[in-house]
Amino acid sequence: MAEPATATQAAAPAVALLKDELDIVIPTIRNLDFLEMWRPFFQPYHLIIVQDGDPSKTIKVPEGFDYELYNRNDINRILGPKASCISFKDSACRCFGYMVSKKKYIFTIDDDCFVAKDPSGKAINALEQHIKNLLSPSTPFFFNTLYDPFREGADFVRGYPFSLREGVPTAASHGLWLNIPDYDAPTQLVKPLERNTRYVDAVLTIPKGTLFPMCGMNLAFNRELIGPAMYFGLMGDGQPIGRYDDMWAGWCTKVICDHLGLGVKTGLPYIFHSKASNPFVNLRKEYKGIYWQEEIIPFFQQAVLPKDCTTVQKCYIELAKQVKEKLSKVDPYFDKLADAMVTWIEAWDELNPTGPVPNGKAA
Amino acid sequence: MAEPATATQAAAPAVALLKDELDIVIPTIRNLDFLEMWRPFFQPYHLIIVQDGDPSKTIKVPEGFDYELYNRNDINRILGPKASCISFKDSACRCFGYMVSKKKYIFTIDDDCFVAKDPSGKAINALEQHIKNLLSPSTPFFFNTLYDPFREGADFVRGYPFSLREGVPTAASHGLWLNIPDYDAPTQLVKPLERNTRYVDAVLTIPKGTLFPMCGMNLAFNRELIGPAMYFGLMGDGQPIGRYDDMWAGWCTKVICDHLGLGVKTGLPYIFHSKASNPFVNLRKEYKGIYWQEEIIPFFQQAVLPKDCTTVQKCYIELAKQVKEKLSKVDPYFDKLADAMVTWIEAWDELNPTGPVPNGKAA
Repeated sequence: MAEPATATQAAAPAVALLKDELDIVIPTIRNLDFLEMWRPFFQPYHLIIVQDGDPSKTIKVPEGFDYELYNRNDINRILGPKASCISFKDSACRCFGYMVSKKKYIFTIDDDCFVAKDPSGKAINALEQHIKNLLSPSTPFFFNTLYDPFREGADFVRGYPFSLREGVPTAASHGLWLNIPDYDAPTQLVKPLERNTRYVDAVLTIPKGTLFPMCGMNLAFNRELIGPAMYFGLMGDGQPIGRYDDMWAGWCTKVICDHLGLGVKTGLPYIFHSKASNPFVNLRKEYKGIYWQEEIIPFFQQAVLPKDCTTVQKCYIELAKQVKEKLSKVDPYFDKLADAMVTWIEAWDELNPTGPVPNGKAA
Repeated sequence: MAEPATATQAAAPAVALLKDELDIVIPTIRNLDFLEMWRPFFQPYHLIIVQDGDPSKTIKVPEGFDYELYNRNDINRILGPKASCISFKDSACRCFGYMVSKKKYIFTIDDDCFVAKDPSGKAINALEQHIKNLLSPSTPFFFNTLYDPFREGADFVRGYPFSLREGVPTAASHGLWLNIPDYDAPTQLVKPLERNTRYVDAVLTIPKGTLFPMCGMNLAFNRELIGPAMYFGLMGDGQPIGRYDDMWAGWCTKVICDHLGLGVKTGLPYIFHSKASNPFVNLRKEYKGIYWQEEIIPFFQQAVLPKDCTTVQKCYIELAKQVKEKLSKVDPYFDKLADAMVTWIEAWDELNPTGPVPNGKAA
């Protein structure tokens, strides 16, 4: 089995891979001083900044970065009535950036995430690792005990079916966090001092049929393969729930990837997550989600998409229909969310008129 | 990590967990000098040595170890005609040791496996890590992105359903290998110099519904929970195939664990695998397996066990029936193997007359 030349071999540290094919999407309410630390890695790329909250506030971006910035007025102007599907006063607004991007790949990062160091002390170029993850295949149909077989120094182990060694295109790469782990409010309250110090040197494919909690803090994806599924839902202002935006996107994405034969990887790269959010505020945002998820997750585990759902858009519209049918009884919120899912796809197609990508093979 | 630990490095004082509840099973054809290095970790435990090949040969065991040894004559004497289910001239014979053990836990290791070092240079007590894996629950129903949530410094991440946080009993712990990776013959031939030097500091549950290639080199399991499924099949002398003994056990074990709601973990601990077996010999043993597995794996992926299969034995007999029905068309070998699976269960129950363990809850 040959490793794809694109991924591993082209990965000289100073080279900005996919410079013209990737946008970095950052949701924020504050000045972007955190970019200073990322400058060596991010400066060659184009940034899409989605300003949340008061649009009259000015967000300062360090000099030398190439960016476009959208505040709420911009979103309303561009989407008109369809702007209702974009959350306000919640980092879920970031998905507007996915929609306006014209690039093939997206990397999204929170503004309280800094450059982490690997165990040797070297600064981790998170973006480069995400790109490696996205450019090498995934292996969702059988577990490889030495993790990602496409990494240097690794391969498929004895007993791995040869017919599955080609893998499938990778749609998403989910990175992790050193320092402050991504815990829910109850766990934050119970373990206020816990820090993640364990550097696990692995990337792996999340097997087909298995759901995972996707965190939006340090995430990359192939917009052409899965973009329309990366809707972060209705959160924050005027909504009964928060902090489930990325979870929602993760459940939908995984179900659709499984259906279309696409892969999702998790593990490296790590970022350094600097500060824990307030657990009391989080508890208020999360508490409905904490009990709703007990019904939402079985719903997604059992969701079956019909064969004629051959594009991400078709899959997503079908999921919206099933959400309306099966989750509205949990809370009327899901009725509204299902409508917003449809609006999101309409808005996506309006801004991306080249038509839907046929399927996973389009990679 | 390029070299195994020295005897002095391994000589750290160790607490012998589960000393009276665990047997170490070692299949061998040679003197067990490799035990010298494991002495600080293994000496408190009882060993079951299964001598393969010529029974007239004397196997030397270093002084101070408590052991029982079975050669082919012993196996024939103890099992009578049922001895036909135990392979000869193949390390698959090790499963006889699982059957004669009277302990709750088994750790099995190959005699070319030495003590590995962690990245800090500390000798790894593989057995202790396996015990930790077996004594903490598994989480097969949803993926936790920070890996085993029961390890120190880790937990369930945001979005993990609270109803699933209790986990399920862990039936098996699959450890990995530094230095010589467990590759099949074609990969060995193509990458003769590849060494595994990546220490991945993780343990994770293999999700429900996902099969994996289980290697018997460094493996522990709860005999009460899953013992009767750990049959290593018909390999070696008189059989058309070798090197699929552990794979067979792994497929059966995983399907039965998924059915009974038990967990399988993989990852830590590492052992140092000292030398690659001959790839040409391996190719001869493996080549039928390499194409058969293309049909065997879909068979196991689709296998469904009826609800009334509430014990491992019942599950295993049912699997044997399905193997006969569906795999005999691949090769008459599977007809013979299906019969041997039944014989194995009969022999198991004869040697373990306390009756079958009801189900996973019995732990």
